[in-house]
Amino acid sequence: MAKSNEIPKKIYPHTFQKVKGVGVYLDCASGTEANPSSIHSAGVQARLKLEKARTEIAKVLSVRPEEIIFTSGGTESNNLAILGLIHLTPSPLSLLRRGVGERSLQHIVTTNIEHASVLEVCKYLERTKQAEVTYVEVENNGIVDPKKIKKAIRANTVLVSVMYANNEIGTVQPIRKIAKEIRHYKKTHLTRLRHPLLSKERAGERFPVFHTDAVQAVNYLPIRIPELGVDLMSLNSAKIYGPKGIGALYVKKGTPLRSIMFGGNQEMGLRPGTENVASILEFSKALQTVEKIKAKEVKRLTKLRDYFLNKLKYSNILNNVIMLINGDLQNRLPNNVNMTIPKIPSDLLVIELSARGIMASAKSACKAGDGKASYVIQAINKNIKEEDGSLRFSLGRETTKADIDYTVKALSEILTKLKKWYN
Amino acid sequence: MAKSNEIPKKIYPHTFQKVKGVGVYLDCASGTEANPSSIHSAGVQARLKLEKARTEIAKVLSVRPEEIIFTSGGTESNNLAILGLIHLTPSPLSLLRRGVGERSLQHIVTTNIEHASVLEVCKYLERTKQAEVTYVEVENNGIVDPKKIKKAIRANTVLVSVMYANNEIGTVQPIRKIAKEIRHYKKTHLTRLRHPLLSKERAGERFPVFHTDAVQAVNYLPIRIPELGVDLMSLNSAKIYGPKGIGALYVKKGTPLRSIMFGGNQEMGLRPGTENVASILEFSKALQTVEKIKAKEVKRLTKLRDYFLNKLKYSNILNNVIMLINGDLQNRLPNNVNMTIPKIPSDLLVIELSARGIMASAKSACKAGDGKASYVIQAINKNIKEEDGSLRFSLGRETTKADIDYTVKALSEILTKLKKWYN
Repeated sequence: MAKSNEIPKKIYPHTFQKVKGVGVYLDCASGTEANPSSIHSAGVQARLKLEKARTEIAKVLSVRPEEIIFTSGGTESNNLAILGLIHLTPSPLSLLRRGVGERSLQHIVTTNIEHASVLEVCKYLERTKQAEVTYVEVENNGIVDPKKIKKAIRANTVLVSVMYANNEIGTVQPIRKIAKEIRHYKKTHLTRLRHPLLSKERAGERFPVFHTDAVQAVNYLPIRIPELGVDLMSLNSAKIYGPKGIGALYVKKGTPLRSIMFGGNQEMGLRPGTENVASILEFSKALQTVEKIKAKEVKRLTKLRDYFLNKLKYSNILNNVIMLINGDLQNRLPNNVNMTIPKIPSDLLVIELSARGIMASAKSACKAGDGKASYVIQAINKNIKEEDGSLRFSLGRETTKADIDYTVKALSEILTKLKKWYN
Repeated sequence: MAKSNEIPKKIYPHTFQKVKGVGVYLDCASGTEANPSSIHSAGVQARLKLEKARTEIAKVLSVRPEEIIFTSGGTESNNLAILGLIHLTPSPLSLLRRGVGERSLQHIVTTNIEHASVLEVCKYLERTKQAEVTYVEVENNGIVDPKKIKKAIRANTVLVSVMYANNEIGTVQPIRKIAKEIRHYKKTHLTRLRHPLLSKERAGERFPVFHTDAVQAVNYLPIRIPELGVDLMSLNSAKIYGPKGIGALYVKKGTPLRSIMFGGNQEMGLRPGTENVASILEFSKALQTVEKIKAKEVKRLTKLRDYFLNKLKYSNILNNVIMLINGDLQNRLPNNVNMTIPKIPSDLLVIELSARGIMASAKSACKAGDGKASYVIQAINKNIKEEDGSLRFSLGRETTKADIDYTVKALSEILTKLKKWYN
């Protein structure tokens, strides 16, 4: 037994072992690994790592560290962005709206091809009469017209939420142009929004807040906030070769967001619960890798995707099958190929590909296996029927030309086999 | 380049590499690692692992796998349990209440020493007039009287939430007795709650729902649901030597819970977002280890804690310092020692200990460093003043007798030094 005046020389696991001179961990109730909210040296050590990762991520986005809020992933980030802005309590905003003779119910503008974690939040708010929502329809190429977004904004619009890149068809939305339209709206409508109660704060300048779900965009598109002009932006580690269960929401300073869960005061009071330090560190590392190889990967994958598209177009076997490529071919993620194959069930196509060692999908994994046609593809093609199948191929860092050759060959076989039954 | 009819023999990272015969991963938009909602073989493989972990955890609790909902941790589990039960829409329940002439606002019964992730949710619901809350006061030993819980239940009570073991003072609440009181209440009040609209479903039988936050209890107390008689129970991986950022909520079949976030239909529709498979597997492993060594650890730590308490009591140096041990000494977690040291600031005590290599805390890490006295200790001792310090030592698997000897010696030194300034 050690003499009682010597610090026991034990080495504790995880974050703890790197703390100099530490011997006795008696804070297991805070966490069996050190909790970054603890004020002892092991806690401070965890906190320093956490804040380093926050600073690194902020640097990539060209924002302040305190504008990065860590969440459990893209779904939570989108929920926080939208639900966190729709306050249930009578807000200064509702007073303001009443002052100018508008309805006090808050209004959201979004599109009809957002991810489920945006659309389902909006539907919930409508259902429970907490907000009104306008779903602006995208054009046939899967891209929304910024003028139509502006036209949908009303005096009671608190939020515009438009995804940066679509998860199914890979179309890239004109975020910068939409931000410009919103700025123009705010400028021209500011006088209308002045109200005796709020004139000093000029609350009208804050609304509508502009949110973008950038989860699918991070790998391939510019994500510096000053260039984009958004107020809120959702990120997800699991889509950028980082761990699952961690994400972030960029929250521009001054945005009147409130927490959607309650407890401790972590994450600037916007997200309670002990921070997942280990995953946050990996998330930051993953994001930095993305930035480093982005330009090169975009070039490589664009080439590979176009090779894929060309091969599909000119394949002899595929010539006899109707195959529609979905979404704009220019304003599109470099890794996305999405096609509709009429009359053949999506899930069957996915399973046939899987049997040949190819992992693809029919639509969003969040909506996989429900047997319904994709709402995204229905939105851009009104002629799509429930029985028309679709396939999404999303390429990645490991994808090679040989993979594409093999996939096109497999697809030819599958379609040759299946069209006998379905046509 | 491989011939296009051979599956490329590449090995992909993570879950993917264990899938037999797999070559081409073209589902990066679902996740750069396989998404358990995807229907291809890599997705199915991830799903099988996830469901295996769910079944393992369910087995430990003696419940059905589909009653385990994975969340991002204890805070989210508590938020889901409470917010998920307080429906904003006019519910069958509110019709029922109106039918029997009661107020339609829903009512919650809890205690005044719950974790912040329960208390802050309750305060939010009160503030926004979504629910009424009764905070039953615990006795001076930090334990709540089950009869007082029963007495607080009204016809509009939808939820009783009482923590299993307190995170600061380690007191263990009589969960089984409270469950019995609730069952008795339901039985005797069932006729009152019958209503034409709901008689068939016998909705009255469902309320109040009984939730327990078992986050601090899992390491040391029995957690089989049939023994406890609760309807909802919160668990957190980070307190049981598992990874941070993952937790679970047990939801008894038939409990009218709704999701508090919106998006995909994961986790029986109660928690959207891609499941964090890797952390869930580690969480399950951690829980199984806890169960395996629980009896032995309880015995060992009880002995060590009592050694600690005795040493504090009979130490010569400490004899001259007033030191109050907080919370019942019998119905207490075997790893918890909590004391109040009048007139010396808590944070100073924690930092002095930390300087000597000892990691302890003053109160919950979620509330650390805010400079306020602990609301838990104030609840059990009305004489506590803001300037009175407290210390929580929570022992763990690594703690030895030598650690305790060293800690008591350090504490003596610190108190000898500080009391000159503060007394």
